[in-house]
Amino acid sequence: MLRQLRPRSSLIQQSPLRLLATCRQYSIQASGASTIKRQDIDPSSLTITKTTTPKETLPPTDLVFGRTFTDHMLSLEWTASEGWLAPRITPYQNLSLDPASCVFHYAFTAFEGMKAYKDSAGQVRLFRPERNMARLNKSSARIALPTFDGAAMIELIAKFAQLESRFIPDMKGYSLYLRPTMIGTQRTLGVGPPGSALFYLIASPVGPYYPTGFKAISLEATDYAVRAWPGGVGNSKLGANYAPCIVPQMEAAKRGFHQNLWLFGEEEYVTEVGTMNLFVAMKNKETGQKELITAPLDGTILEGVTRDSILSLARQKLAPEGWIISEKKYTMKDLDDAANQGRLIEVFGAGTAAIVAPVRNISWKGKMVDCGLKPGEEAGQLTLQLKDWIEARQYGDEEHEWSYTVPK
Amino acid sequence: MLRQLRPRSSLIQQSPLRLLATCRQYSIQASGASTIKRQDIDPSSLTITKTTTPKETLPPTDLVFGRTFTDHMLSLEWTASEGWLAPRITPYQNLSLDPASCVFHYAFTAFEGMKAYKDSAGQVRLFRPERNMARLNKSSARIALPTFDGAAMIELIAKFAQLESRFIPDMKGYSLYLRPTMIGTQRTLGVGPPGSALFYLIASPVGPYYPTGFKAISLEATDYAVRAWPGGVGNSKLGANYAPCIVPQMEAAKRGFHQNLWLFGEEEYVTEVGTMNLFVAMKNKETGQKELITAPLDGTILEGVTRDSILSLARQKLAPEGWIISEKKYTMKDLDDAANQGRLIEVFGAGTAAIVAPVRNISWKGKMVDCGLKPGEEAGQLTLQLKDWIEARQYGDEEHEWSYTVPK
Repeated sequence: MLRQLRPRSSLIQQSPLRLLATCRQYSIQASGASTIKRQDIDPSSLTITKTTTPKETLPPTDLVFGRTFTDHMLSLEWTASEGWLAPRITPYQNLSLDPASCVFHYAFTAFEGMKAYKDSAGQVRLFRPERNMARLNKSSARIALPTFDGAAMIELIAKFAQLESRFIPDMKGYSLYLRPTMIGTQRTLGVGPPGSALFYLIASPVGPYYPTGFKAISLEATDYAVRAWPGGVGNSKLGANYAPCIVPQMEAAKRGFHQNLWLFGEEEYVTEVGTMNLFVAMKNKETGQKELITAPLDGTILEGVTRDSILSLARQKLAPEGWIISEKKYTMKDLDDAANQGRLIEVFGAGTAAIVAPVRNISWKGKMVDCGLKPGEEAGQLTLQLKDWIEARQYGDEEHEWSYTVPK
Repeated sequence: MLRQLRPRSSLIQQSPLRLLATCRQYSIQASGASTIKRQDIDPSSLTITKTTTPKETLPPTDLVFGRTFTDHMLSLEWTASEGWLAPRITPYQNLSLDPASCVFHYAFTAFEGMKAYKDSAGQVRLFRPERNMARLNKSSARIALPTFDGAAMIELIAKFAQLESRFIPDMKGYSLYLRPTMIGTQRTLGVGPPGSALFYLIASPVGPYYPTGFKAISLEATDYAVRAWPGGVGNSKLGANYAPCIVPQMEAAKRGFHQNLWLFGEEEYVTEVGTMNLFVAMKNKETGQKELITAPLDGTILEGVTRDSILSLARQKLAPEGWIISEKKYTMKDLDDAANQGRLIEVFGAGTAAIVAPVRNISWKGKMVDCGLKPGEEAGQLTLQLKDWIEARQYGDEEHEWSYTVPK
């Protein structure tokens, strides 16, 4: 079933690179489909076709994540021979795709999650969009989908967000969730690099993850399935990382837990929670110093924008207060020891949807690890503080380079 | 971004099952989306809408795998509330899907590869279709897509194959490649089990994998990326397993190799080649006995129908001749040792497209492991023999229960 790629030369030769590669490195230099010089994105060629049937906006409190969408969508087609074709904003509409399209068969799909916010002056803002574009390029390259000029794409996304600004509720905690998506559209069944692709972006107005204030979650440590591994694709935001996570999540829900916690290896390293990164605040075993810990980017961890923002804020604002900020491996046993010894301060998930998600407890090996919240308390002080710091930059209350103001 | 599944009970309780699960098992009991009793497939409700613009069939020698398709497609919609809706055969046509459909974002896709053959009497035959249906059900369940009655689906596929029989060339080595596909179609961005899905089947007439006779391939052992992991989904035929394999395949091609060979772990266990299973024939180190070896189904290996057919044929026909037939782990070093000691007889890939694909050599750690073919020889005796045995049953030259004759 595999399409045989034509070898560059029928004479098999060992390149010097191969001769050196005798130890296992688990690193993959994916250059993507764009090694040949083709046309990159040209924002000036954008065409806009406005809807003739504008939707009514819902009352903010009725919004459900990713269920209703705005009037329009942004899309760009790519072909291997021509590169990126002219961008289009059109009414939100179905995609019409050949049933042989490779996205349906081989999961040629990468995506991003980002948000547009309305500041107190009514201006639309994006949050670190260059991070999302860089990650989408990295994800796309990893599965031989095309890459693009991130700055040009941000220009287009900004125009789209401005066009749809009436869908962004003018309230703190509300935003317009943006879903840039890249799919392979080649209409043949041979397994090979797609010769055509489609980038599109749809948008869904969303309310706060916790509409009535924080609600701490309970996790189940998953010991019967593995999300990602060294040399795999767990660090890329690929569709391929998501469908396989549903059954473990459903299993955890069946047993009364909100989400599952992914462990790795015999050591049971703590990696991610559901589809968020995880942070742990504890007192250091040796020194008693406060330490904020998250798993390092070793190829098995999604490189979260919120994760990076928290680390950056913590280094800027917590380290001077004596906190140690650590990207390092830690195990469920480390976490359990800290809980048992009264050293565990807080645990929380981090991602674009919730910003931070406080964790009450974790079921692990038949016992419940208490994550430090007092009875009735739904979020720790650090979790609350980090949310405030991030939101201040997202909504432009604090002027900061992370906030990208959309031109009117 | 994760949709919070509502826990069954807010009171967290440890089930006895959880208390027992203290050792890492890496097994996942996926029951799929069909635990609630819903309507299963009803073949008697099939409707057929024939095309008004029949395609011209290509000369058999012009056929390229998966590039041209027949006149029609089979499709069945599923919803969580109703189950399987009435099956339809319609003209081959584009799918019209909401851009929020979960297949585009989270890789809710599983598929099969199978073939319809024309026997010497002109009858259409399928090969072990119940195996493909069982595997598709297993794959679907692993990512919370719906399952179905395999026998009912085979009845529909047989009707489809009969309708399209004019596309099956009447020549040995030719067939109609059938691609059953299951995708999630839920139109919301929350990460959860799809509430709707689509099964469809398209078909592409194909010629022999090696139109001018066998051509042995050269492989590159991939030591910088890993296809599958215990506790992952490498044993399921999911789209998610395919897109991540393209870049390593392109890298191998760049250096002059036809396909890449997937290794696993520090031990460098040999697992699969490109998208085929791999078989090695060698003389046993201790006894000198001939041994046919393939990697065991430990969760990292695709459960190939051709793999199973080869093992079955070998146990029936080779074991009495003194061969040992082994499903066991073996390393690149084992393979290299056998080559160096003159014990390596043959190496070949096995899959639906090629049946068997003889391997000439494998690049590993900067050296070339010779797989036993003589200069100018393109396939070993065992490889040729196995191909003949399998084809005899596929084309009905040998009457066997593996061949399913399609009612006219």
